[in-house]
Amino acid sequence: MKISARNQLKGTVESVVLGVVTAKVSVRVGDNLIESVITRQSVEDLNIQVGSTVTAVIKSTEIMLMTD
Amino acid sequence: MKISARNQLKGTVESVVLGVVTAKVSVRVGDNLIESVITRQSVEDLNIQVGSTVTAVIKSTEIMLMTD
Amino acid sequence: MKISARNQLKGTVESVVLGVVTAKVSVRVGDNLIESVITRQSVEDLNIQVGSTVTAVIKSTEIMLMTD
Amino acid sequence: MKISARNQLKGTVESVVLGVVTAKVSVRVGDNLIESVITRQSVEDLNIQVGSTVTAVIKSTEIMLMTD
Amino acid sequence: MKISARNQLKGTVESVVLGVVTAKVSVRVGDNLIESVITRQSVEDLNIQVGSTVTAVIKSTEIMLMTD
Amino acid sequence: MKISARNQLKGTVESVVLGVVTAKVSVRVGDNLIESVITRQSVEDLNIQVGSTVTAVIKSTEIMLMTD
Repeated sequence: MKISARNQLKGTVESVVLGVVTAKVSVRVGDNLIESVITRQSVEDLNIQVGSTVTAVIKSTEIMLMTD
Repeated sequence: MKISARNQLKGTVESVVLGVVTAKVSVRVGDNLIESVITRQSVEDLNIQVGSTVTAVIKSTEIMLMTD
Repeated sequence: MKISARNQLKGTVESVVLGVVTAKVSVRVGDNLIESVITRQSVEDLNIQVGSTVTAVIKSTEIMLMTD
Repeated sequence: MKISARNQLKGTVESVVLGVVTAKVSVRVGDNLIESVITRQSVEDLNIQVGSTVTAVIKSTEIMLMTD
Repeated sequence: MKISARNQLKGTVESVVLGVVTAKVSVRVGDNLIESVITRQSVEDLNIQVGSTVTAVIKSTEIMLMTD
Repeated sequence: MKISARNQLKGTVESVVLGVVTAKVSVRVGDNLIESVITRQSVEDLNIQVGSTVTAVIKSTEIMLMTD
């Protein structure tokens, strides 16, 4: 299975915060801690827990660039 | 200056492809090559070139998670 | 492989318009023609052509609702 | 009134889950169940309930494509 | 017709740049110049030109906040 | 520090609604009340309160246009 999203960063889940509708999942990817907000349902359906190996998937049109 | 976007990944620009309206910028961040599509105007305004140091900024609601 | 994006609509590609950076792909999903803008690179990498079977993947936070 | 978002899928609301800030609304569109996360306020302002007829509106740049 | 997107800013088009797939439209809204990237097709379908009155529509989950 | 997001609207916070994961912040920008949904953590980290001066930052690819 291939997806058009250009950015796929593999890492390990470090924390999960469950809301009613959404959930915040923090994923350690190398030196960076990636924070993702997805639906609570998806956290449950994909059985995402602390220690899970996941891939953060990001469409390129969603990424901004900042310069100093 | 602080921004609410939870994800800020510092890296070096490896390539820039200019379209009429948009541009694709590839940024080396550790082991990952991040691809961002922003406006051509912003590439010019921020003087983004190969070798530039930039920070990829991503709102957490834009990040999906994938499991094997 | 499972992805957190809640919406996955299977269909057939009806047209592809290639720009320099982006491409527009129209996908027939039942009675609806779904239009997606992804990078040209992904169209090439995923070998997306008219007649290809694809799944349109959409994060739930990207979907608005309209009432009459 | 016309909107630039290329994707407008008419359907019927099958469920509504209310959070404090956001809400998840599931909409039956043909064979597919579309899940949208919008603000709780909008669910109330637009009086969206189970059985409501709504149109799911999706900007084309928010749609990824997946191939097997 | 009502849409769940919380932000609807009325203004006047000041410029249109047409790419192959996308187009950039600048809209004067009070003291601010709003820049939108939509598909070229939508610019044509909605007959958007310099001087057109349009409403910029933005889902609240797409808006970040910055502090000094 | 410069960011590629084309839209940066300065205003004053009029209300903050805190959820478990997300928060809704309303910002007065001229005649318009902009509503942003960001993470609760960012509201706390950036110390955003009623009366705070903030800038709403919006990537141009996230803005749709509507005509009457």
